[in-house]
Amino acid sequence: MPGMSKRGLTPQSEDFSAWYNEIVYQADLVDLSPVRGAFVIRPYGYALWENIQRELDAMFKATGHQNLYFPMLIPVSFFEREAQHVEGFSPELAVVTHAGGKELEEPLAIRPTSETIIGELYSKWIQSYRDLPLLYNQWSNVIRWELRTRPFLRTTEFLWQEGHTAHATAEEAKEETRRMLDVYATFAREFAAIPVVEGEKTAGERFAGALQTLTIEAMMRDRKALQSGTSHYMGENFSRAFDISFNDVNNEQAYAHTTSWGFSTRFIGAIIMSHGDDAGLVLPPKLAPHQVVIVPIARAKDAETAARVGSEAQRLARTLTAAGVRVHVDDREGISPGWKFNEWERKGVPLRVELGPKDLDAGTAVLVDRLSKEKESVGLAEIATGIPGRLETFQQRLFDRASAFRDEHILEAHDYDDLKAKLEHGWVYATHCGDPESEARIQQETKATVRCIPLEGPSAEGTVCVHTGAPSGYPRKVLFARAY
Amino acid sequence: MPGMSKRGLTPQSEDFSAWYNEIVYQADLVDLSPVRGAFVIRPYGYALWENIQRELDAMFKATGHQNLYFPMLIPVSFFEREAQHVEGFSPELAVVTHAGGKELEEPLAIRPTSETIIGELYSKWIQSYRDLPLLYNQWSNVIRWELRTRPFLRTTEFLWQEGHTAHATAEEAKEETRRMLDVYATFAREFAAIPVVEGEKTAGERFAGALQTLTIEAMMRDRKALQSGTSHYMGENFSRAFDISFNDVNNEQAYAHTTSWGFSTRFIGAIIMSHGDDAGLVLPPKLAPHQVVIVPIARAKDAETAARVGSEAQRLARTLTAAGVRVHVDDREGISPGWKFNEWERKGVPLRVELGPKDLDAGTAVLVDRLSKEKESVGLAEIATGIPGRLETFQQRLFDRASAFRDEHILEAHDYDDLKAKLEHGWVYATHCGDPESEARIQQETKATVRCIPLEGPSAEGTVCVHTGAPSGYPRKVLFARAY
Repeated sequence: MPGMSKRGLTPQSEDFSAWYNEIVYQADLVDLSPVRGAFVIRPYGYALWENIQRELDAMFKATGHQNLYFPMLIPVSFFEREAQHVEGFSPELAVVTHAGGKELEEPLAIRPTSETIIGELYSKWIQSYRDLPLLYNQWSNVIRWELRTRPFLRTTEFLWQEGHTAHATAEEAKEETRRMLDVYATFAREFAAIPVVEGEKTAGERFAGALQTLTIEAMMRDRKALQSGTSHYMGENFSRAFDISFNDVNNEQAYAHTTSWGFSTRFIGAIIMSHGDDAGLVLPPKLAPHQVVIVPIARAKDAETAARVGSEAQRLARTLTAAGVRVHVDDREGISPGWKFNEWERKGVPLRVELGPKDLDAGTAVLVDRLSKEKESVGLAEIATGIPGRLETFQQRLFDRASAFRDEHILEAHDYDDLKAKLEHGWVYATHCGDPESEARIQQETKATVRCIPLEGPSAEGTVCVHTGAPSGYPRKVLFARAY
Repeated sequence: MPGMSKRGLTPQSEDFSAWYNEIVYQADLVDLSPVRGAFVIRPYGYALWENIQRELDAMFKATGHQNLYFPMLIPVSFFEREAQHVEGFSPELAVVTHAGGKELEEPLAIRPTSETIIGELYSKWIQSYRDLPLLYNQWSNVIRWELRTRPFLRTTEFLWQEGHTAHATAEEAKEETRRMLDVYATFAREFAAIPVVEGEKTAGERFAGALQTLTIEAMMRDRKALQSGTSHYMGENFSRAFDISFNDVNNEQAYAHTTSWGFSTRFIGAIIMSHGDDAGLVLPPKLAPHQVVIVPIARAKDAETAARVGSEAQRLARTLTAAGVRVHVDDREGISPGWKFNEWERKGVPLRVELGPKDLDAGTAVLVDRLSKEKESVGLAEIATGIPGRLETFQQRLFDRASAFRDEHILEAHDYDDLKAKLEHGWVYATHCGDPESEARIQQETKATVRCIPLEGPSAEGTVCVHTGAPSGYPRKVLFARAY
């Protein structure tokens, strides 16, 4: 294993962006590739994604969705059928013009998202109201040719899932849009320990072609916001563009109402920046590739002791595995225990067990908590039985810490100067009129955008726009923040 | 649900190829897409793939492999670094020439396989013998621009896994190549009930750039062979092309020995053609999306009876689910029981439970076996407890039937006329000299190719080539067959 870089890690308070750019490589999450903006996701990063996939996929299936797979190449002309969609996506397309040694008659785009090709097939599959709802999802790769890229956050290729559903009525489609936002929010809270805020995007921030875009927004430890999952209600836009029509219960032709919702490897960035500290990653136990790492400590010269410690480490690992814990024994030779401690700390493993001959004689081991960094001498029997409970507690503490941090850094502004001042501190609730020009002006002047109109939060009743003084455009105050 | 086509299904004996082309659509496995040669994998087909993935992935992890993800775009120049590799793959490349609205400085190919980009990174990750072996795998999509395409068997885009490993010695790399072939063979036999033959490809059939290609070959019910998984030993070919070198135990620079091995959605074609019959698919229980389908039978008019039957069906389904059985209750309204029976038969569900009011009064249900097509009245309690055992028996019977069929259709030829005659009957063992020109001539004249030099099979000792009369080129007789 290439192991850790010997370079240090820039403290978050000094330069959060540098910290991020260093830790993604130092924790072996990604590597550069020969293609600009596309990154290799290394095994430690990919294991995180596999854990995310497994849990989200189970939630999709529990809400009645089935997986399937659509081809990744889409005729470029398909994008032109939905006016807003082509405007939003054509600048980012990667286009195949040659294949099999010949120039293609029509160029093919690598999917940036699959509404168009899926619309084409839904038009065929949906004939009657009996065919509805159609609740499908696919796990896939997509390409969006971005100029400025950063690992996980913005990459030319990324992995995601895209759900695409069709319904007989607007009401059902809106319910689905909201249901899947709630799935994302529940997943973020319960598995990633990230207390996301759910809300609706303003018109200018909607998905290209959507009537409504719902979002979950997460607060990073530099108090910037990261959009972490979105769910879109398309109305009849794509149904009309791709003729997804059906015979309704009254035997009349109607257009289906469609939704789409997506969650990507970007969320790994959310995990890194929600919980990490100056020592590196802090991973939520429910998603961590290794929940526990056991480091046996013994001088290689003393073979008998090394064997005794090694076999106790393996025994403990078997017990924990049987209890459903993801445990890893770091028995690499030629690497010092101190180096290993540092590596697993940097890689954010929730609990570390250090096991040396003296501990063994005393029937104990040293248990180190990644969040509190406290070391504790614990009886071996208690380690074996107590770790599942400690992991649960760790998960809860991580969520509580992130929630407290978020709550501390959401303020409410009463006028424009107040908004500008408070944006230095974090996220800010403020009344806004909804005028896109005003939104753009605020962004120019403060570098903050309306992250969402929160589903829950302070009412806008009796207040006026902090920027224009006009009446509020929304029932609630909107959430302003600087964002990734 | 779109449900079944009303068209009939061509009998296998009349036109096997037509049978295949019909059943993949009629069983809702695939659909056509707007891009020639790329197919949509529908939920019923994708669920098969998910089951394949889950089991294979567990086997890869049990043999020490980790998953990761490499970008799908590869600079075209990378292919030119390995002479045989570029010759094999460049005619099939799909090439991105434009992205983000501009022409690219260097065109990028969509991966047809990832040895080249992976070699580039392995060169960076592997510095010392301590970094070896590197045992990685990725699940991904690839594109190979084929002219003649057929669902699952040959498609411009397909899904697969590609394992890529690097080792300190040739011996270790060869062991890995063989280990992963055995994983494929074990998977095929134990999960797909397909009695594959393991063997080595002749020089002309090797993967482009490999020193050795191992294969599993499966016999379809038209007695043609289908190559169903391959494992390649690359020697130092890619290591030299991409400079994957390391400091060995003696502190000297050495090239790593690499392998790759792949298994794709093509295998779904193997399942279809190994087990299907004139009524449609027959799926192995260990991979079937639904192992059991329960069809409640009651006239909608008689609401009370319908409720009673429906609730018993749900109760039975819960019991089976709790016992780890994948069960589906087909309670669609407006579709007759006969239509449903036909649909699930066509979709190859191993066991079907028909539950009507008279059965319920008698405390029984009708259990229908997809393989034998026998109907049996069975007590409800016995259904609930007996199904896991029946599924195991079904799996074994399917394997036994396929093994008997294969054994019946492998003969041994002693001269060239004998070979030609016996190829009409199935696969044929015959001695071959190993001369590529002779191999090509035989293919021209018989349409059969050397599928492999089997790892087990009749010895070639004391025999001469059936075609040239020259001494045998291999220790065993080779296996000739017509193939997909």
